Order: sequence, then structure tokens, then C-alpha cells
Amino acid sequence: MPTSSPTVARPADPVSGSYRPLALGDVSFDGGGYWGQWQGLNAERIIAHCREWVERVGWLGNLRAAGDGTLPGARRGRLFTDADVYKLLEAMSWEFGRAGDETWDEQAAALLAVIRAAMDDDGYVNSFFGRPGQPPRYSDLEWGHELYNYGHLLQAVIARVRTTGDREALAIGIAVADHICRTFGVGGIESVCGHPGVETALVEFARLTGDDRYREQAALFLDRRGQGTLADVEYGRQYFQDDIPIRDADVFRGHAVRALYLAAGAVDLAVDRDDTELLASIERQWEATVARRTYLTGGMGSHHQDEAFGEDFELPNDRAYCETCAGVASAMLSWRLLLATGRPRYADDLERVLHNVVATSPGRDGRSFFYANTLHQRTPGSPVERDVQSPRASASQRSAWFDVSCCPTNVARLFSTLACYAATSNGSGVQQHLYAAGDYAAEIDAGRVAWTVSTQYPHDGVVEFTITEAPPTEWRLSLRVPEWATSATLTTPTGTVPVAPGMVRIDETLAAGEVVRLDLAIEPRFTFPDERIDGARGAVAIERGPLVYCLESIDLPGGLELDAIELDSAVPPFMTGDADVAVSLIERRGTNASWPYGAGGKRPPGESHTVRLEPYSEWGERAPGAMRVWIPMAATART
Amino acid sequence: MPTSSPTVARPADPVSGSYRPLALGDVSFDGGGYWGQWQGLNAERIIAHCREWVERVGWLGNLRAAGDGTLPGARRGRLFTDADVYKLLEAMSWEFGRAGDETWDEQAAALLAVIRAAMDDDGYVNSFFGRPGQPPRYSDLEWGHELYNYGHLLQAVIARVRTTGDREALAIGIAVADHICRTFGVGGIESVCGHPGVETALVEFARLTGDDRYREQAALFLDRRGQGTLADVEYGRQYFQDDIPIRDADVFRGHAVRALYLAAGAVDLAVDRDDTELLASIERQWEATVARRTYLTGGMGSHHQDEAFGEDFELPNDRAYCETCAGVASAMLSWRLLLATGRPRYADDLERVLHNVVATSPGRDGRSFFYANTLHQRTPGSPVERDVQSPRASASQRSAWFDVSCCPTNVARLFSTLACYAATSNGSGVQQHLYAAGDYAAEIDAGRVAWTVSTQYPHDGVVEFTITEAPPTEWRLSLRVPEWATSATLTTPTGTVPVAPGMVRIDETLAAGEVVRLDLAIEPRFTFPDERIDGARGAVAIERGPLVYCLESIDLPGGLELDAIELDSAVPPFMTGDADVAVSLIERRGTNASWPYGAGGKRPPGESHTVRLEPYSEWGERAPGAMRVWIPMAATART
Repeated sequence: MPTSSPTVARPADPVSGSYRPLALGDVSFDGGGYWGQWQGLNAERIIAHCREWVERVGWLGNLRAAGDGTLPGARRGRLFTDADVYKLLEAMSWEFGRAGDETWDEQAAALLAVIRAAMDDDGYVNSFFGRPGQPPRYSDLEWGHELYNYGHLLQAVIARVRTTGDREALAIGIAVADHICRTFGVGGIESVCGHPGVETALVEFARLTGDDRYREQAALFLDRRGQGTLADVEYGRQYFQDDIPIRDADVFRGHAVRALYLAAGAVDLAVDRDDTELLASIERQWEATVARRTYLTGGMGSHHQDEAFGEDFELPNDRAYCETCAGVASAMLSWRLLLATGRPRYADDLERVLHNVVATSPGRDGRSFFYANTLHQRTPGSPVERDVQSPRASASQRSAWFDVSCCPTNVARLFSTLACYAATSNGSGVQQHLYAAGDYAAEIDAGRVAWTVSTQYPHDGVVEFTITEAPPTEWRLSLRVPEWATSATLTTPTGTVPVAPGMVRIDETLAAGEVVRLDLAIEPRFTFPDERIDGARGAVAIERGPLVYCLESIDLPGGLELDAIELDSAVPPFMTGDADVAVSLIERRGTNASWPYGAGGKRPPGESHTVRLEPYSEWGERAPGAMRVWIPMAATART
Repeated sequence: MPTSSPTVARPADPVSGSYRPLALGDVSFDGGGYWGQWQGLNAERIIAHCREWVERVGWLGNLRAAGDGTLPGARRGRLFTDADVYKLLEAMSWEFGRAGDETWDEQAAALLAVIRAAMDDDGYVNSFFGRPGQPPRYSDLEWGHELYNYGHLLQAVIARVRTTGDREALAIGIAVADHICRTFGVGGIESVCGHPGVETALVEFARLTGDDRYREQAALFLDRRGQGTLADVEYGRQYFQDDIPIRDADVFRGHAVRALYLAAGAVDLAVDRDDTELLASIERQWEATVARRTYLTGGMGSHHQDEAFGEDFELPNDRAYCETCAGVASAMLSWRLLLATGRPRYADDLERVLHNVVATSPGRDGRSFFYANTLHQRTPGSPVERDVQSPRASASQRSAWFDVSCCPTNVARLFSTLACYAATSNGSGVQQHLYAAGDYAAEIDAGRVAWTVSTQYPHDGVVEFTITEAPPTEWRLSLRVPEWATSATLTTPTGTVPVAPGMVRIDETLAAGEVVRLDLAIEPRFTFPDERIDGARGAVAIERGPLVYCLESIDLPGGLELDAIELDSAVPPFMTGDADVAVSLIERRGTNASWPYGAGGKRPPGESHTVRLEPYSEWGERAPGAMRVWIPMAATART
């Protein structure tokens, strides 16, 4: 039986690597801090909202019907809905492990009972395939999502077992994983699922159970992919990463969530097997993707049609897709790469995507979500009705639920485990990557270390670390200085020094009661795009600390339209008395031409206005409206 | 029986309007002229290519199987494939009417026989619906395309009847049109088809037969649309223009082909019924669409996902959709508006879309086509295999056929009728809109006029009109001066004068043998975008006459990438000794940043190069490669 309790529970538990993640029980976020507030909202609203909706739309009912024998007649929703019940179960399980609210223990047990009843004797479970009147099992590997669903079921089982030791959950997981190995092992169906995800789950299940067969099956899936096993489709085989073997690819491509889940599985396998070639390949692909195929928010995926990465520098802000699930997947991948390599660059990206994609999706009401996270909304669009399932991935307002509602439960499961992402340990010390206020502890070679982080970050750049427990012998605290923090200072008991972006190691051994202060010197700043990004050429964005800001039409002076302003780039962004970020905008007035191309100049400039900006993650909260992250410049500020 | 012969055959024959189109028999393009060459290729290759492919992929076989009773088992392809057989029949019929090649008469008769055998006793014909094992008739109005298919069948019948007087074709058309009226008339299924198209066909069929019931049915369909009769779908009801009543809309929106076919039907109805309000509404929507939702090429449709118009100024060049069929539909609509109103602006747009969308789709081999017509191809993409059906709408090379292959037959039917688009008449004279070399004739109040157009247009701006037959009394020749021709001159027997863009009326009554010369003074020119088009900001395009030019990677000096150059806007575009358009480009060299956003400037400038451009319509003909229409400027040429 694997060891189980909140003190060891973490969603990824690699066999080796540079850093070891803290466990849920090692960290307690301050409920008033930025991420603590999100965790509170997740516990109080988001998970319950998802539970309500999987019932309401019949997705949980599909699994009940599988147990009752009333399928296919009773089935509702798209073919992959089972996965959302599993992701919800995962979120409930971690949430119980995090905060101990027994509601989630009970609800998770109830979901598990439904799943168990839905399962066939041979470990197969799926509400869409395999019964009379349904397509046969594994008859549509390209689109069927059967192994994808299993991946989420295994992750849910892992969460349940690691937080409670639930033996019945473990039995379900073993039945499923054994079924996968029997069915897709050597001599079985020697193919892959159109939607990756099972790979990382199988590796983690091997870590949980100690049974290397599951890791071996993950390796088979990874090696088979890129051989053209799946059929060609409208979007090409790159859509499901079946175009190029994973070790040979240069960049992430195709469906963004698929590409990122697959890469996460590859890192898991590489770390456990000490496969440095595979790890290097994923690092190389990640670098190319971040350098050329990633939005300023950290969002990934340029296309609505195939939810896919664009070509290099194909990053239009209009209808930027940046699916929330791709943000979650990107966070999972960056975190795994951070653990594997210790490179602070991965934590920079993790922080960016958490603040500007993952935290953008859910509304502050905990009951509404963005599916896509565009960087430019030209009109308010159709009003979104509250409490209604949306058929659309994009809108200027968050929706309660979607026909394809993968995102809400994905946000929920990430938020419930966020404590594991903030800090790490290794033998010689601890490392803080995300500046989330709260209490932390870790066991290192020298003994137990505990510390408290106090900060208003990201609204303020000052972060204080109070050591509450320290080992008697030498140990080291390391702090990430983000790449944008070019004027940061560090104050330790021996004085204040400037520190450069990267990992700052405090070479003093701190004692309990001692305080370290990191001042990241957060100021609003202009950010310019690479000139090859056509959609942002001649425009500038404003960032402050890890937050991307945006201009919302609701903040414009009366009568001014979002497409009738330009930014005066001679005036740097500044803080107002209300602690808002503000910029100077210049009107462009004039009539519309009857043809928008010609020899003429721009419409003439008009009045100037000082206008506040909104953190991008909070856009659309106040009213339906237009929004843009990249603001055209009235004058070119650079050549 | 309607009057039938090439001398009266035209695809639209409005009851009233400013101009009357010439008939197929009134015009004979010079086989060496620009449009004459295309008509030759259509006759020799394109139609035969389409005939071969509808056989090969089984779409004609579907209709044969309907007659043989072997459906649904034998059915192949998507549900709307019948329409492509009908469009092919239309193209063959017009082509026989145009040039008299009896091959097309025989082949058209053979297709008609298949269609007749496929038809049920009550006039219903469709290979996908209505049989045991198939969905019931009209059970899926949103996506089923049954009335859309009828629209194309009626247009084919009209072509056949107008060019041959074929009574059996007419009987098929009447059976279909009567079936539509019975089934969808008042008290029937009071809804509409998800894909418009039947409206314009019903009005034209009323014109052909003189039976106003069909016009009335078209009016019912137009009035019902926009009432939310169809279900909401992922893309919203605007996808099929069921969001707003057609008279109340301000702009075209949703699926571009649907919006444009629907508007064409509205113009037909408005003209025949003297409904000035409806006509004004379509003109207003057209104006807004052309001013804010149209690409430089005249292409319409920004989105791949829903093949739809974007919001105002949402015109990214990356993956610009600009479906070929939307180009054909736009030409049909502009032409109808030109006939209705006489405004030369519609002919300007017609010319733009013919040269830069419709003529871009087919390769000069007559056996390959673009489905989407992007303005920016960043990489060569996957190589396209010759002679293979493509699952993809977008590529850097033309494909022989597509899974959804609406475009090739649409191009074929337009090319076979292009003679009707070039010139018009009214009581007092004739009007030349497109400068296609050839022989023209028209009957006007004063008698018969005939003239020859000699020109190398669009490669040269000089157009000569030789009057070959003139009535004895006063008559008037009018010539369109395109909006870009700001230095044009007109030479008549009485002298040379400058002429401004618009319709130039020659107030002299020309006699047979007299010559008029229009010099449109074609020079390459820079074109700048409206500053609200984010995807083109800071970039410039090059046009010459009606042609948009593009930069192809194949023309760059060795080793230079398309995304590593900027245009030196201080050097105007110029003609080379080889009669190519050329520009001066400046290299941008340097390493890639690891993150494409920051405080830094552009990569440093390097060498300058003179590089030739290619007419956009010919891009991708030489080799797979990258291409862009809008070229970033090294210096901002305007404020």
C-alpha cells in the first residue's frame, strides 16, 4: 500500500530531479493572500459549482446510467464528458487533502462509487463506447478519448489514494491501469489515443504503486506517437502530435492541450528513467515554443479551429485562443521542468501563466469561466446569460458551463494543489518560486525548516520571509528573482544587496526568528513585441510585476471607442493615487473611409486622456465590453 | 416555354435596374486576353477536371445510387456533395452556351439524366436524406443543406434551359421548385435552410418561367430568416444569418458564403419587386462590410473555424480565410448591385475580387485550387501531393480536390459566364466595366452597337475601343475608371482629356471604325492599411492596377527568410527591365530572443536588396514557399 496522507500528498512525485515539491500538508496559504484567496474560492464555490453542473448536464448521470444498464438511451453530452467527472473527483480529493473539509471526502467517495458501478469486469469504463447501440471500444482512437479519460481517472485515483489511502480507489486504478496494459501492450492494439494525457497518469501511477509496468506502458505510448499510427485528419497529424516522434520534434505544435499533456508525460518518464536525451528534447521544444509561439500572457494556442499552436510568431491577438486548459497544462509542464532541472526560467513561465491565464478564466464569483482567453475583444459580443451552458468557447463574459466544459474542473484541480507549486526542497535547502503568502515547511538533510511568507504580492513587490524553524546546522534558502525584476534588492541579517534575475542563494544559515526581505521593486513597464509578431506590430503592452494589464472600454472617457485611441508612448505608464496603473491615450477621430486601404495617412489625432488599466486576469468582471492588451502606439517609440 | 439561346442567356436577368447585362452570345473574349485565357483554361481543363473528380470521389455515384436504389449503403462524401454535381452541370451548360462545344451539351444531358432518375415522384431529390437508414427529409435544417442543394440544381436548370431550351431540364426545375413551394410555403415547414442559396435561385427561376410563386417563396424564405427559426449553434445564429431580419442588419456577418448568397437573393427580389427599402438595406450592409470587413484582395471571411466574417477591422493576414466560394459569391453580389444601381463602386469591387480571389484559386494547370486564400503563408507547410483529395482548406500549394470541394465547380460556373459581367447596356448606350479584350455587341434603343476591346490589361493600362457597328442616331459609350486610376486619360476622335475615377460618359456619338483609347496609367503603388487593422499595422502592400502583389520566399536572395526582412518605404515600388514590380528590402538579422516580448528594440538592420514581387493571384505556382501581401516597413512612412 502506498504511503498516504496530506503530508506526503503531491500531484507529481518524481523519482529524481533537481528539486522535490513540497507536499499539500507542508504548505498553508494565507487566506488573505493572492493565491490563498483563490484557494478559498475554489473550496467554497468552484468545486461545488462544478459538482452541481456535472449533475445538471447529465455527465455524472452518464456514469450512473452505465452502472444501471440504461445506456445508450440515457446518455447526454459530448463523448468525452466522463473525464470531467474524473477531474472533479481529483479536485475534491486534493481539496480534502489540502484543508480537511470532510464534505469533499464524502463527495469524492460517492463519485468513486458511481465510477466503480460503471466499470466492466475487465476494468473498462466509458459511458460512450462498447454497449449495443454504441460504437465498439477503441473503434475511434483519433477522436474517441477513451485513454484520455483513463488518464484523468488515474489522476483522480492518485489524488484520492495519496490523500486518504482509499483502498477501493486504488483497486479501481489498478483495474484500469492493468486493462490499459493488457489492451495496449506489446501484441495488443499497438496505437495511441488521439488525445494524450494517459502517459503522465501512467507514470504517476507507477510512482504511486511501485509497479513499473505502468511506466513501461507510458513509454510504449510515447514511442509509438509520431509514427503516423493515427489517421490523417483535416488539421493534419500534428493535431495530435502523431506527425513526428517526440524525441525528434523541434517545437510544440498541433492542439495545444494535447501537446502540453504529452510533453508533461515525457518529462515524467525522462526523470524517472534518467533519460537525459528525452528531457533535453522536451526542454528544446519548450524553449522554441516559448520564444516563438506563446502569447504575452503565457497563453498557448493561436487557432480556434483546431485549438492549436500557430506557426512561429503567428500570434494574432484577435481571437487569441489561449485555452484555459492549455494554461493549466503549461503550468503542469513548466513545474515538471523546474523540478527536473532547477532552472528558474520555468518558474518565471509558471508564474506568468498562473497569473495571466489560469487566474483569468474563473470569475471572482467562482461560478463563471473563460474557456478561451483572447488578448483583444473588439466588441462586447452577445451577452452571456448567467447560469446557462454556453455553446461557445469565446465571449467577452465568463460562462457558467460549456458544451465542452473541460476548463472549470481543470482550474479546480490545479487550485487545490497550488501549494505544491510554490516552493521546493533539495538536500541542502529550500527554494521559493512563487511568492504566495503563507506558512511553509520542509525536511532537508539538516533537519526541518519552516518559514512564513508575508507579502501583498503581486500588488506589491516586497516579500518577507520569517524563519520559524531552522535546523541546527548549515542550510540554504534560495529565492527566485523574476526576469522582469531588474532592480530587486535583498535584505538579510547582514545587510541589503542588489540581486539580479535568477535564483538568489542566501549563503547565510538563517536561524528561527530571522527575517529576509526581498524587494522586487514592482513598477509598471512598457513591453514591446518581437517585430515578427504581425498582430502586435506598432503596439505596446503594459506589465507590472507578473501581471499583464489591459485596456477595457468601460474605462474610456464617455463616447470614446476602443479602436479610436492610441497610446502616447512618450509617457511611461504610471501609478495613480488609487493604486491603479494608468497610461496616456490619444484619440484618433474622423470618419470611416469607404475602403480601408489607400495612400492616405492615419486619421488625425485629437485630445489626450489619462486612462486606468485593469489587470488582464480581471477583465470582463465589471461589464460586457471591449478589451485589448496590446495598444497601438501614436508614435513609434523604437526603431 | 422561355426564350432560349446563347444570345439571350445570362445567369441573372433582372426585371428592372440601371443596367442590363449582356448575354453570353453578345460577347466573345479574345483567347489571348487575360480573361479569355481563363475561359480557355476553363473550357479545356477545369470543367473536365471537376467532371473527373465528381466521378472519382463518388459524388456523381451518390445520385446514380439514388436512382438505382442502392442508397444509403453506396453513399460517399459529405452530406452536401449533390450540390457540386449541380454546379458542374451549371458550368457545363453555360460553357456550351458560350462556345458551343457539343461535348458539354452531351455531358450536361447525361448528368441531367442521372438527376432525373434520382428524383422522387414528388420532386424531392437528395442522396443523403429520406431513405430507410438515412435521416428523414428536412430533419436537420441547420446543417442538412437540402434547400441549398436545390438552389444549385435550379441554377443548373436555368443555365441548361437558357442555353438549350431543354424541356426535360425545365420539367426537373419545375418539379423541384413546386416541391419547395408545397413543402415550405405558408402552412408548410415555416423555416429556412441553414445555408442560403435557394433564394436567388427561386427568383431567377421565376424570371425564367414567369411564375411568380417561386419569387413569393423566395420572399418567404428571406422574411423568415433572422427570426431565430434555426437552433442556436456553437458559432451563434449569425453563422447562418438567422440572428437579425435581413432588412434590419447593418453589416454582413457569420459564414461569408451564406451571407453573400443570401444578399444576392435579396437584391434579386428587391429589383424584381421594386423594393427600394430592401435594396437600400443590402447596399448599406455591403458598404459597411467593404469598409471594415474585407481584405485588400476583396477576400471576405476572417475565420477558419466558422468560415465567417470577423468583427470590424478584424482582418488578420495570418490564416486569412477568404474562401474562394466567398469570392465567387461576392462577385455575384457586386454584379447584381451594379446592375441594380449603376454605381461604379460595385464594379471596382467586382474587378478586385475577380483578379485577386477568384483568379487566385485555380492553378494555371487548371487542375489544382486554393480553397482558402490567405494573405500570409509563414512556412511552405506540408507538401501537397498532386492528384490527391486534400482534407485541408489551407496550404501553400493548390490541391486537386477537397473533402469539401465547393470551390472548383464554383470557379468553373463563374468563368463560363464571365462574358456577362464585363459590359452592360441600357436604353441609351453601353457601359464597359471590366477591360477584357474581346468583341462585344448590344441592342439599345437606337439600334445595334458592336465594339472590340484591345488591351493587355491588367499588365498594361491602355485599353482601345474600336466601334465596329453603330446605330445611326445618338448613343453613348460609358467607361469605368477604377478608383485607383487617378491619372487616367481618355482619347476620343475629338482629343485627349484627363478623366477621374468613376463612370466616364463619352458624349460624342461614335461611328463604326472610330477608336476610343483609355489610358489608366498603371504604375505600381504603395497601399497603407487603416490603422485599426491590427494584423497589417506598420506594414504596406503593393498594388498595380487591379492586381495585388505579394512577396514570395522563392524570390528572396539566398538564405534570407521571409520574416527577416522589412520594406524600405523610402523607395517607392518600381518596374524592372523584366516588367516585374520590385521593391527595396532591408534585412533584419540577429538571434532569436528566448522570450519575444521586452523592453528592447528591433533586431538590427542589415543589407538592402531589390526583390521582385509576384501578382498575388499567381503565388505558389512555382514552388511551395512562404508568402506575404503586407510587408512590414523599416521606417514608418506616415503618421
